[in-house]
Amino acid sequence: MLQEITEQPVVLERTILAERAKLEKLGEFLRGRDIDLIVLVARGSSDNASLFGRYLLEITTGIPVSLSAPSVFTLYGAKLNLKRAVVIGVSQSGEGTDINSVLESAKNSGAFTIGITNEADSTMAKIADETLLIHAGREKSVAATKTYTGQMLHFYMLASALADTKIEFERIPHFSSQALQLKSDVEELVKRYVFMENCVVVGRGLNYGNSYEFALKLMETCYVVAERFSSADFFHGPLAIVERRFPVILFAPTGVTRQSNLDLLERLHELHADCLTITNDTEIAAKSPRFLQMPSEIDEFLSPIPFIVPAQLFAALLAKEKGINPDAPRSLSKVTKTI
Amino acid sequence: MLQEITEQPVVLERTILAERAKLEKLGEFLRGRDIDLIVLVARGSSDNASLFGRYLLEITTGIPVSLSAPSVFTLYGAKLNLKRAVVIGVSQSGEGTDINSVLESAKNSGAFTIGITNEADSTMAKIADETLLIHAGREKSVAATKTYTGQMLHFYMLASALADTKIEFERIPHFSSQALQLKSDVEELVKRYVFMENCVVVGRGLNYGNSYEFALKLMETCYVVAERFSSADFFHGPLAIVERRFPVILFAPTGVTRQSNLDLLERLHELHADCLTITNDTEIAAKSPRFLQMPSEIDEFLSPIPFIVPAQLFAALLAKEKGINPDAPRSLSKVTKTI
Repeated sequence: MLQEITEQPVVLERTILAERAKLEKLGEFLRGRDIDLIVLVARGSSDNASLFGRYLLEITTGIPVSLSAPSVFTLYGAKLNLKRAVVIGVSQSGEGTDINSVLESAKNSGAFTIGITNEADSTMAKIADETLLIHAGREKSVAATKTYTGQMLHFYMLASALADTKIEFERIPHFSSQALQLKSDVEELVKRYVFMENCVVVGRGLNYGNSYEFALKLMETCYVVAERFSSADFFHGPLAIVERRFPVILFAPTGVTRQSNLDLLERLHELHADCLTITNDTEIAAKSPRFLQMPSEIDEFLSPIPFIVPAQLFAALLAKEKGINPDAPRSLSKVTKTI
Repeated sequence: MLQEITEQPVVLERTILAERAKLEKLGEFLRGRDIDLIVLVARGSSDNASLFGRYLLEITTGIPVSLSAPSVFTLYGAKLNLKRAVVIGVSQSGEGTDINSVLESAKNSGAFTIGITNEADSTMAKIADETLLIHAGREKSVAATKTYTGQMLHFYMLASALADTKIEFERIPHFSSQALQLKSDVEELVKRYVFMENCVVVGRGLNYGNSYEFALKLMETCYVVAERFSSADFFHGPLAIVERRFPVILFAPTGVTRQSNLDLLERLHELHADCLTITNDTEIAAKSPRFLQMPSEIDEFLSPIPFIVPAQLFAALLAKEKGINPDAPRSLSKVTKTI
């Protein structure tokens, strides 16, 4: 897992080089169609990448996005009206049975289908009208890292191809490299969390998917019962679980979510919670009992990929400190075939 | 909270009587339009009711449904193309600032807007093109119960008015009454859970929203760190947190989700988890270390409202057993104004 985390800048760079032209052509093609819905279909880490993709695509293209509920198709046998929809399946292996079944059903309903996967020869690649490949090499760890950020990158490239304004996604590999430099800080920091049993991870907007992903990594590799919320939803009930020294971890970049994170930090301070922030904002850092300092030049819009890197390091290094092998979590296997 | 849980059959009955004709007219009007998307906008318990509504509307009408991410509008200022969309705001108080702001923005984008609320004079009722009222009387407890099921009922009535097949939602108040008879069983059962610190609530398909709602109730009224998953997602990573005696609570009615719940129960048995099911299926009950027995005549399709009732009782009675007042959870207030 640590090895695969470290590979990310290279994987991202390689994926941009290899896929960029295809994405531009695809964007041109799709801009010529009357699309009024994008549907994303995924599970696990791919679903967390899609949660990010949902915000990004809505914000940049103005096309509404829906995160698919696969069982609507697979268990209830519903046929949705998807004539003017683009349906995007996201799966590292390209072998998620239910995801592929939704893609197939969508194609039959007249939708244009796209697969985002790490496997060129997968079932997903055969079904989809267009395949966007992550060039990650094989991902051996059960805990997805480089394919998660690779999927996110594809959403940036797709958004850039569909939207009127270009996105500077070429800067992301460099930012991710910078984030990797936090490794020794994280190594030191995790010692404090060895006996943590529960925690809440908070992220909002473009970093909301990261809160799901970090929580999932903590569950699968460290066996921590990790909840995930947006700072907005957190105030609607779940805040009641926070007691003195309850651990809360926040993704808190500069930008539009800043005020909401500052408000939450203040409330958590009153409740004597135990807060850690991943931030590149001076005021948020000053108000955080502890923080991981990200480079200030990273704009919120480009923050989700570099900001997940210290979180991945945290999960991998905490697992190590706890004596758990993060590459082979108990009870799990790499490809999950749900029906 | 207990009082309000008990009122539910009456509230449901009253809401059907008062709103039915309006819903039928609305259905006729909407069937005449070219709708290709329904967007649901909500937070907290209303968002959980919407998660149910999403499955129900897609399954019965074939129209794709998206659960809105309010911050796309409020923080990022995006304008979505919603010309052929129906946008439904769901809020007990009708005063959720961000929900109303999304409704207003959607209306300006040409969407037809509906509000589902308990307050006829609320801001939401003033903004929406049509208002569907829950006739619950005032809900005093911070923990929503009767407005949650009232919102779900409105989704049944709306689905029935939009779909080609009629739904027998008139049977739901009676089923809910039957569910209330479990009160003394639940009272006995909760004693076992007084020192429970974490748990996972699982539901799938039409009962997926209930898993979120029960987890939220456990967080806000009992301060239990409660995760919520579909049985499908649970296998993608989170299963690793389950160790010997880890508490897992399942909504497991007869019907299409049955096999997936049986598979999960078997896996959890191997892991020595501590399972409780809310079920009306003989085989699931037989495979559950403990269960709450629901009436067998309740079809899966009509199960979500009656099945949440024993869960609400569980949260209220566990809070009581723990010496917590469920009507006034620490750190929370009834109306949450997010921007």
